[in-house]
Amino acid sequence: MPIELLIFAAVANLAPMPSLSERGRHTPFSPFRKLAPLADKAKASGVKVYHLNIGQPDILTPPVAMQQLSARLEPILAYSPAEGNMSLRQKMVDYYARYDVRVTPEEIMVMTGASEALQLSLFACFNPGEEVLVPEPFYANYNGFAHIAQVRIKPLSCQIEAGFALPPVAAFADAIGPRTRGILLCNPNNPTGAVYAPETLGALGTLARQRDLFLIVDEVYREFCYDGATFVSALSLPDLADQVVVIDSVSKRYSACGARIGAVVTRNAALREVLGRYARLRLSPPGLGQWLTEIMLEDDMAYLQEVKAEYNRRRGMVYERLAQMEGVTSYLPGGAFYCFARFPIDDAERFCRWLLEDFSHEGATVMLSPGPGFYATPGRGRDEVRMAFVLDCTHLAHAMDCLEKALEIYPGRQLPLSTSIACSGAE
Amino acid sequence: MPIELLIFAAVANLAPMPSLSERGRHTPFSPFRKLAPLADKAKASGVKVYHLNIGQPDILTPPVAMQQLSARLEPILAYSPAEGNMSLRQKMVDYYARYDVRVTPEEIMVMTGASEALQLSLFACFNPGEEVLVPEPFYANYNGFAHIAQVRIKPLSCQIEAGFALPPVAAFADAIGPRTRGILLCNPNNPTGAVYAPETLGALGTLARQRDLFLIVDEVYREFCYDGATFVSALSLPDLADQVVVIDSVSKRYSACGARIGAVVTRNAALREVLGRYARLRLSPPGLGQWLTEIMLEDDMAYLQEVKAEYNRRRGMVYERLAQMEGVTSYLPGGAFYCFARFPIDDAERFCRWLLEDFSHEGATVMLSPGPGFYATPGRGRDEVRMAFVLDCTHLAHAMDCLEKALEIYPGRQLPLSTSIACSGAE
Repeated sequence: MPIELLIFAAVANLAPMPSLSERGRHTPFSPFRKLAPLADKAKASGVKVYHLNIGQPDILTPPVAMQQLSARLEPILAYSPAEGNMSLRQKMVDYYARYDVRVTPEEIMVMTGASEALQLSLFACFNPGEEVLVPEPFYANYNGFAHIAQVRIKPLSCQIEAGFALPPVAAFADAIGPRTRGILLCNPNNPTGAVYAPETLGALGTLARQRDLFLIVDEVYREFCYDGATFVSALSLPDLADQVVVIDSVSKRYSACGARIGAVVTRNAALREVLGRYARLRLSPPGLGQWLTEIMLEDDMAYLQEVKAEYNRRRGMVYERLAQMEGVTSYLPGGAFYCFARFPIDDAERFCRWLLEDFSHEGATVMLSPGPGFYATPGRGRDEVRMAFVLDCTHLAHAMDCLEKALEIYPGRQLPLSTSIACSGAE
Repeated sequence: MPIELLIFAAVANLAPMPSLSERGRHTPFSPFRKLAPLADKAKASGVKVYHLNIGQPDILTPPVAMQQLSARLEPILAYSPAEGNMSLRQKMVDYYARYDVRVTPEEIMVMTGASEALQLSLFACFNPGEEVLVPEPFYANYNGFAHIAQVRIKPLSCQIEAGFALPPVAAFADAIGPRTRGILLCNPNNPTGAVYAPETLGALGTLARQRDLFLIVDEVYREFCYDGATFVSALSLPDLADQVVVIDSVSKRYSACGARIGAVVTRNAALREVLGRYARLRLSPPGLGQWLTEIMLEDDMAYLQEVKAEYNRRRGMVYERLAQMEGVTSYLPGGAFYCFARFPIDDAERFCRWLLEDFSHEGATVMLSPGPGFYATPGRGRDEVRMAFVLDCTHLAHAMDCLEKALEIYPGRQLPLSTSIACSGAE
């Protein structure tokens, strides 16, 4: 065969091969991991990389619970009920009661992480082509879950100048179209750290009831509300039994991301019936993770208090350091363990790549999550990044040194039109 | 309000309530658990229920592995890589080598059970409205996975008189239509126990290559092939790198259904890239289950041998007992731990309900899975049931006593046109 044909054959992939699905090829990349190969390269060349890019806490999983796990193992690691072990759901009932949420074990369905909880909720609540209102920036994987469910995310803009507070309820009302069937919030918010006030949630609840919308609230950062703010769960709002769907997870709370234990909590029995069909298809949530979660729930007060205090220290440090960096717009996040800041840069993707490929300060650099992945509106977030406070204060201080230096010398540095301001992230 | 209006309001559910999705309400029930409330009632009334209805083994999860788990726990139960821990995938490479399957760790993607492995494979391989050929009867939850992926199952009939051997390859070829994009097999088969011969698999592989189809093979019962039959994995067929997708799980092999650890194994790099996007959205497979699986893989030969011998004993007993029951059509299954038998009954659903509601023998009854749930063709399987050998021989003997008695006195008893025959389940 002449060389041209050989090349053509190679390029055109003439070997028989079944084609993949269109939907598969259009499934969004998770923006959290696409810079990973660059980080690996940086590490291979001897640079220390401070990972502020992913919400994987450095905090220990409750050590006592891990030690007690072996004593709780049953001799057969069997399928649990599809909706989770009853003993676990009973302990979850007590946990929610701490937040004035009165639910029965039947109203709790254990899921394989908040990811499955949200994915199945989207399937059960919405038809393909229907729409859900989501304030942006939002947790980047919502885009992927919506893609799989063929649900359209209709974004509502939050502003950094307002600490990413929710838009007024009128803006949600105005955004409701003929195909709008729900509102999806994350409270406390990933990626912004904003904590939503009870009145705002209540008003959105009323809107949901009036307009027959589901109000889906991802509350996985519930434990991390600072400055004395009291967390208010959507489940404690009155008269919304059929509207409210709460997404939960133990991943962040107990620094147990690998447990893959989450939950859907809803008083809507018809919704639970449909969720149950999906849940039975995948048979059961992870058994070992369920056993561990039961133990973690038994004696967690001191642990949670300590972890919250630690994140609070980090939050204060990041806030103060960012406030001192010229051209950076930031705010004091009211909850979670993220800050979503505006940098004096041309392009966040380019800056994050540059940090990993072309920059180091005293042998180290930082890995951040570029802003655009957290938006559905094209073009937004281009000069923004998310930082997760998942390093202890010593390492976090080094990471902030790196960041400060990097912003000074980044070739694409450009001051934004608005100057640095600081305001509270809590509404 | 007059009483009529009150009743109307209650019936019409006038309280505002967002409606659920159509797709959710059309998601099939898992046929394995819908008789569960009747079984609970029977137990509450003091009747012992022998569960032959679900593939939840009674065998212990490898006790040594369970004991060693606590020594393997890392202090932070973190997200694993989306495709699973590299150390686990390396051990899986060695495991597959036992079956003459040479794969690299990169060709193995750890999944949350075979359920997720198959669900994501359907998403990645097929577009909505496309079609996959599946010999029936098949594992009932395939219907649900296909529903979620909007993929159509086109069933090909297998016959009990042939021990549910695969139809000739020509039947597969004839069934290929313009939207047909794959073939899905389970080998050894759930629910029939049939084991497919290498030549048959090879011929289907050739067909897949010629017609650009994916050949997806669920091999979770691989360890359980009897009568000296050698299991042949689709991964060991030559020249099918891009076609073959193997679905795996440790649930049955190690009696660890609650671990929720499965895998997709494929040499198709483009497919893995798309599967990786889906996998990253759900972040990671369960961490504790991955650690346990690593330990289980380290020293499993004696365990697997013993478990296989035990299932083999049970298989022989069920076969012999069924052969003695008048009007029952059965066969000796070549693999797995199921038998799919034809009973002299009017309706399998009715019979299974009657067993739980109106029958007991010496204080006990049996729970079976009705046949129709394992078919896509309406009307098929009406006089068939699946039995899982998940009780020890003593209990299994009692269960067979119950079944024999029940078939004698069941009010809907009717002899089928064909009489009892026995033949080998292996092709």
